[in-house]
Amino acid sequence: MEFLTPSLNKLLDDWLDEDLGRGDLSAAALQGHNGRAFWITKQEGVFCGGYLAKAIFSRLEKSVTVKLLVDDGQRINPGQRLLELQGPAHILVAGERTALNLAMHLSGVATATSVLVEQLEGTGVLLADTRKTTPGLRVFEKYAMRCGGGVNHRFGLDDAAMLKENHIAWTKDLGDALLRIRSRSPWPACIIVEAETRDQAVEAICAGADGVLLDEFSPEELKSLIPQLRALVPGQAGFRKSGHIVIEASGVKVEDLRSYSQTGVDLISTSASITKSSWLDFSMRFEPILSFK
Amino acid sequence: MEFLTPSLNKLLDDWLDEDLGRGDLSAAALQGHNGRAFWITKQEGVFCGGYLAKAIFSRLEKSVTVKLLVDDGQRINPGQRLLELQGPAHILVAGERTALNLAMHLSGVATATSVLVEQLEGTGVLLADTRKTTPGLRVFEKYAMRCGGGVNHRFGLDDAAMLKENHIAWTKDLGDALLRIRSRSPWPACIIVEAETRDQAVEAICAGADGVLLDEFSPEELKSLIPQLRALVPGQAGFRKSGHIVIEASGVKVEDLRSYSQTGVDLISTSASITKSSWLDFSMRFEPILSFK
Amino acid sequence: MEFLTPSLNKLLDDWLDEDLGRGDLSAAALQGHNGRAFWITKQEGVFCGGYLAKAIFSRLEKSVTVKLLVDDGQRINPGQRLLELQGPAHILVAGERTALNLAMHLSGVATATSVLVEQLEGTGVLLADTRKTTPGLRVFEKYAMRCGGGVNHRFGLDDAAMLKENHIAWTKDLGDALLRIRSRSPWPACIIVEAETRDQAVEAICAGADGVLLDEFSPEELKSLIPQLRALVPGQAGFRKSGHIVIEASGVKVEDLRSYSQTGVDLISTSASITKSSWLDFSMRFEPILSFK
Amino acid sequence: MEFLTPSLNKLLDDWLDEDLGRGDLSAAALQGHNGRAFWITKQEGVFCGGYLAKAIFSRLEKSVTVKLLVDDGQRINPGQRLLELQGPAHILVAGERTALNLAMHLSGVATATSVLVEQLEGTGVLLADTRKTTPGLRVFEKYAMRCGGGVNHRFGLDDAAMLKENHIAWTKDLGDALLRIRSRSPWPACIIVEAETRDQAVEAICAGADGVLLDEFSPEELKSLIPQLRALVPGQAGFRKSGHIVIEASGVKVEDLRSYSQTGVDLISTSASITKSSWLDFSMRFEPILSFK
Amino acid sequence: MEFLTPSLNKLLDDWLDEDLGRGDLSAAALQGHNGRAFWITKQEGVFCGGYLAKAIFSRLEKSVTVKLLVDDGQRINPGQRLLELQGPAHILVAGERTALNLAMHLSGVATATSVLVEQLEGTGVLLADTRKTTPGLRVFEKYAMRCGGGVNHRFGLDDAAMLKENHIAWTKDLGDALLRIRSRSPWPACIIVEAETRDQAVEAICAGADGVLLDEFSPEELKSLIPQLRALVPGQAGFRKSGHIVIEASGVKVEDLRSYSQTGVDLISTSASITKSSWLDFSMRFEPILSFK
Amino acid sequence: MEFLTPSLNKLLDDWLDEDLGRGDLSAAALQGHNGRAFWITKQEGVFCGGYLAKAIFSRLEKSVTVKLLVDDGQRINPGQRLLELQGPAHILVAGERTALNLAMHLSGVATATSVLVEQLEGTGVLLADTRKTTPGLRVFEKYAMRCGGGVNHRFGLDDAAMLKENHIAWTKDLGDALLRIRSRSPWPACIIVEAETRDQAVEAICAGADGVLLDEFSPEELKSLIPQLRALVPGQAGFRKSGHIVIEASGVKVEDLRSYSQTGVDLISTSASITKSSWLDFSMRFEPILSFK
Repeated sequence: MEFLTPSLNKLLDDWLDEDLGRGDLSAAALQGHNGRAFWITKQEGVFCGGYLAKAIFSRLEKSVTVKLLVDDGQRINPGQRLLELQGPAHILVAGERTALNLAMHLSGVATATSVLVEQLEGTGVLLADTRKTTPGLRVFEKYAMRCGGGVNHRFGLDDAAMLKENHIAWTKDLGDALLRIRSRSPWPACIIVEAETRDQAVEAICAGADGVLLDEFSPEELKSLIPQLRALVPGQAGFRKSGHIVIEASGVKVEDLRSYSQTGVDLISTSASITKSSWLDFSMRFEPILSFK
Repeated sequence: MEFLTPSLNKLLDDWLDEDLGRGDLSAAALQGHNGRAFWITKQEGVFCGGYLAKAIFSRLEKSVTVKLLVDDGQRINPGQRLLELQGPAHILVAGERTALNLAMHLSGVATATSVLVEQLEGTGVLLADTRKTTPGLRVFEKYAMRCGGGVNHRFGLDDAAMLKENHIAWTKDLGDALLRIRSRSPWPACIIVEAETRDQAVEAICAGADGVLLDEFSPEELKSLIPQLRALVPGQAGFRKSGHIVIEASGVKVEDLRSYSQTGVDLISTSASITKSSWLDFSMRFEPILSFK
Repeated sequence: MEFLTPSLNKLLDDWLDEDLGRGDLSAAALQGHNGRAFWITKQEGVFCGGYLAKAIFSRLEKSVTVKLLVDDGQRINPGQRLLELQGPAHILVAGERTALNLAMHLSGVATATSVLVEQLEGTGVLLADTRKTTPGLRVFEKYAMRCGGGVNHRFGLDDAAMLKENHIAWTKDLGDALLRIRSRSPWPACIIVEAETRDQAVEAICAGADGVLLDEFSPEELKSLIPQLRALVPGQAGFRKSGHIVIEASGVKVEDLRSYSQTGVDLISTSASITKSSWLDFSMRFEPILSFK
Repeated sequence: MEFLTPSLNKLLDDWLDEDLGRGDLSAAALQGHNGRAFWITKQEGVFCGGYLAKAIFSRLEKSVTVKLLVDDGQRINPGQRLLELQGPAHILVAGERTALNLAMHLSGVATATSVLVEQLEGTGVLLADTRKTTPGLRVFEKYAMRCGGGVNHRFGLDDAAMLKENHIAWTKDLGDALLRIRSRSPWPACIIVEAETRDQAVEAICAGADGVLLDEFSPEELKSLIPQLRALVPGQAGFRKSGHIVIEASGVKVEDLRSYSQTGVDLISTSASITKSSWLDFSMRFEPILSFK
Repeated sequence: MEFLTPSLNKLLDDWLDEDLGRGDLSAAALQGHNGRAFWITKQEGVFCGGYLAKAIFSRLEKSVTVKLLVDDGQRINPGQRLLELQGPAHILVAGERTALNLAMHLSGVATATSVLVEQLEGTGVLLADTRKTTPGLRVFEKYAMRCGGGVNHRFGLDDAAMLKENHIAWTKDLGDALLRIRSRSPWPACIIVEAETRDQAVEAICAGADGVLLDEFSPEELKSLIPQLRALVPGQAGFRKSGHIVIEASGVKVEDLRSYSQTGVDLISTSASITKSSWLDFSMRFEPILSFK
Repeated sequence: MEFLTPSLNKLLDDWLDEDLGRGDLSAAALQGHNGRAFWITKQEGVFCGGYLAKAIFSRLEKSVTVKLLVDDGQRINPGQRLLELQGPAHILVAGERTALNLAMHLSGVATATSVLVEQLEGTGVLLADTRKTTPGLRVFEKYAMRCGGGVNHRFGLDDAAMLKENHIAWTKDLGDALLRIRSRSPWPACIIVEAETRDQAVEAICAGADGVLLDEFSPEELKSLIPQLRALVPGQAGFRKSGHIVIEASGVKVEDLRSYSQTGVDLISTSASITKSSWLDFSMRFEPILSFK
């Protein structure tokens, strides 16, 4: 994350306002002091949130300097310094909680992702996220997912379509549903079908789906089904190569990741790195004070 | 368009505020009257904007009723009534200009699109739009494009990636650029390469592009190039079928549409239906007045 | 346009967000490069949008420099360079489409206006716009109108009042309607009456209207009516001089502008320079690259 | 005020948020109760704010009913009931302070205005406001001014232009300044010149000003100057009649209003009804309670 | 006020937009000039609004310099210069009214407060404000109150709870109401009970209220009641010391402040410094002009 | 949570927009169908988010009905139905993810809280939260904390002040810092001192702190320190009774909660129920379909 759109910058403002309310009462004890501070991690993991910390403090006052000592996506160890801040004391305190909360949460997501991704190492299978993200934080949590080594699934209901159980129930005819969605969608938008049976998966591909998500199949079922699906489309080898139908597994327990990775799937999608992760624990330490004015 | 997201509803509010400013001065002459009004078209074409008119008036006051006499996407003829409004006179006047301006512009876009689409009739080639849209109106203009028979291209810089001349210039290596974009993108996001030479087109497909946009090629060049490109990927027949590489032509003059449609391209993208269209001319006629309270 | 209010700056942000969505996917291929670019026009006309381009890029990042090579309102010729940009490559790409779309559209409006204004040259009659403007762009389109040599009519329902057919229908008594509007309006607000008959025009002036808009009268009718109207108010000669009743013609076809200009009207109002204009075609060319960081 | 634009409705939301913050802590003691309440005035004056109270409570919850017992602009006496509310107790309490604060302030403005207007009774001279209004409340305070019998001056820097001392200082040539403003303004926008000497006043009218504001002249000076100014423009008799140059006095002490009203001025502008007014004192009395659910 | 939260900065933008509307028409006469200006007070009092003026002009353009010649909270005398501005003439004019209106109003509040606070001098009794503040200006008016020597009461319905007559009426049991509010409130939130009888006051303290507001008691009643209340809680001496129950009087006429200050109350709350204050009168004087570019 | 402020409602809109982006592509397959759906929990725990689900769907369309089958704060068991929805199919799908994500996360927080609170059962010691909350969700996460049986600490930097290590470092003199904060704070705002040594704790209370937070003390240290602190203020027995100094422990490991609860502290504050909780897993099941229109 090296650039924030105007609306993301506005979101940072909203988050600062959430903590500041009508103004920091304790600022009265800080006015007129300059300070230096460090972020230090108490836990190991994968860092995420340095660029955002920089952006948050700069929303409050341009004169604050934030020096990143660790890049987003880098591994960190207990006691390590993550970034260094310098500026008016009341500004450092005003942005402290918002910036730390965001970074601690995102680093937790990146760390949890990296643990899962490790299990897939060497298999060529990718770990993808889902739309189960904390309201308001999707862009940032998906960024953390990438920092941890995962790949992003669609960002919303509008950048790719997924035909699920309920869509199929309503429309009855999967092919017809797919056609209606295709004609209303921008042409580069992929349409993925969530299949719960072999037949649905086959039907989806024949109807022109760009990918199928195989939900709650066992590794054994997948092993027999996937070659059959691949045979339907004589495309190139390799993920997202033309003609390579994308096959995704979901509903996979964390402990089964390894066995699923050997079924021929392209990717496994999971919300676990968001819904089951804990925050990493960082603290902000203040240094010798320089009085100013 | 049968549903507006919260942010699109807010946009309608902003547009009403633009015309209302600090309030309609002429309302003083209307207060206390109820009215009925019709929209009538002075020109033929394709209508677009009925659902939005409904939404605009309902933002001002729930009690206004708007009855659509023509559906979006339907052909209209001079003198035809398009919709009927009923409600407090000062509300009808307050929303009149905003709703009409939007519908007259969008109907102009839909009509211009339909004229171009007609030229492609029977060829199976689709007409796509571009990102050359009026600031603030993209979602609506792209909707009008669909109403006129076109298909939408990507909606922004985020729902599909397009590698253009300048990206390639900077990165030098097309394959490397494509890889970097792929790894940062949600997996279902298509990557399209704008090619200006045969070699670039071939390189793009080999590097795994989901589509190529052939800019300012002649019909003859396309006729010889396209089969060569198709041969690179042994996919299914049919647009957006798995394995079917999407080939798009751009930089096509309106009068050449027909000859380009016989080159084997899947779609022709043009901004003409937005940048060169005129508004359709509608008027709002007020009917016998019923006094109220 | 040399200064943007806070709300207009916010509008630029909204437009950038419209194109950027959740972030430019292609930025991944540009990160770390600096660039220079030029805007070049492919068509002749009147330029409009340089100051706004400057503002748009500065919303994204202060470090981008935009050097205007042509002033708003100046004539331009095919191949001419319009402005020069320098800054981080991913920022140049992020703002490109929004800034160009706006400038190409506004330059189209300015150009169309200038063509109409030329027809009135030497007659002393002014060309005015209307409230038929694209939703969200009124302030900018009216600015483009001025760049093309036109004069602005009111900006909304609140900065001047216009009594139209429907107001008169409801209130029955024109004089009474005018009085009610006058008493609710800020005193410097002009009240204009749209008259469709001679009698309405006379009645309007006698009732104290600041101007009359004569809709769909023929040049001959105007020639006989206008002296009669002027005689009602023995004011100074010259547009907007005290006592000079302002007389405006509307519903004029573009080809009849010249003959209407010889009827004694002060101004002719038309929406044609907005509703019937095409965008001018500009392109953004990127130059040799300087790597940075 | 019988209709609120979207942005004014949003302003009411902002004001409710200001008082509610993160939510009313005392609501816990009210939940599940329904209530009825009355607004009662402790002081006499002119009421203003009933329609706005209605709007405020309806922003919180549609089910609240607000019955206006007194119209805006009506005189009220101590002990009189102003409006009646019915709805969920926690909603009545949530909107109470915001609605009352607004109405008490606006009624103070309306009352102060009416006291000044009384002094002008029978003279035909109008009392106008200025741009000295409380930030955020201009539209509402100007409405209160009308409720008290005054007339509004321009609403902002954009709906009429006023050339003041400093503009003249910078431009040196009043006529040139006026011309530059005229050409950039919508044609129906009035241009008023604030004159501090006889010569400036004469120059202004000759240069085509729509009105002159004579600042800090004595009644005697005005008596001799005004006929001279009127003679420059042989217009109709009557305020805002065509050809009638509008002459305005400012810098008038409240106790001198009467003598200024006999100098031939059209209107006297003053900020006193806003800057020197006190709030009227209203209270909200709650009635027997009906439990619900 | 030495720091503004993002939402307060946004509020300043909204206020600038209120005055600027679609743009300052008179700017056309100022473009290209640089200027210097001073704020000068015509009246004596307590100044408030310098920091905000600085913020307002910096929202419009960073290049404007504002030098404060007087600190907020300082006494000022007629003719005294308050601050000095330098920058582009059209920016100085664009922010002039908004900044002055705010400062003149807030200085009026600070001055009115200081007059009341003087009456309490030497008594140790504090003057507190209420929630009767102008919509949108609470944070600023409460700041002005502090500048004038007062102390702030709660800022909204959410940072402390006050149990009033109506809450008690609905819940019947004061103790139960207090408990319900306590359990839903953040633990550091104070709960204050507005008591109208001796018994209510006693009941409130026994039920665990953090303070009692004694409304419309006479000084004599307070003198006998307060020691009785203090005896219920054997706390430390001194306002807001642990165990010191806070006793507040309200409904006090301005002329009775002194006698109420000798009853043993800790503070007297009043809305008078806001609801009954007048604006201080400042003017902005422009100085010799430096032309630029 | 039985009432949402305008700004919280706006937050729900922002969250819906986050998922909807430019509109749900799959809606094309659902248009014209009505549906019914249930939320079912796969895990046991404490429910939170029903009222918010109701609010979310009603933001999209008033006609959707949401029937709560379980109250917020109630225990739930696997397979249990939580709520029932009925309305247009495309609306149910549009709000599904946002409402579920919020409720699953908040139910996770409520559940984690309840597990910790159980350990304190019968001890009279309360569990409080902190400012370590997910950006944008503070009001909702603190509500979930209450649903789980906890008590809220302050909501931001403005509703209570906390003097921490760094404040003391800067100001050197704790008493002076406390005084400066007190004079700038609304009087009902509590000031809490975070003490890291016995001496600081004593100094804090003597200086007039409303509470002390004892960070990273051992249970043994607390047992000896707390009686000493209580002796400094001879107040009433009982939490938040007048004169009862509030003593809070922090930095407590989850497994030590029980032993800390026996040291005489009033409350233990922890961020664990937010930073270490997992989402509860709910699904939305769609039922037989009723076609409409």
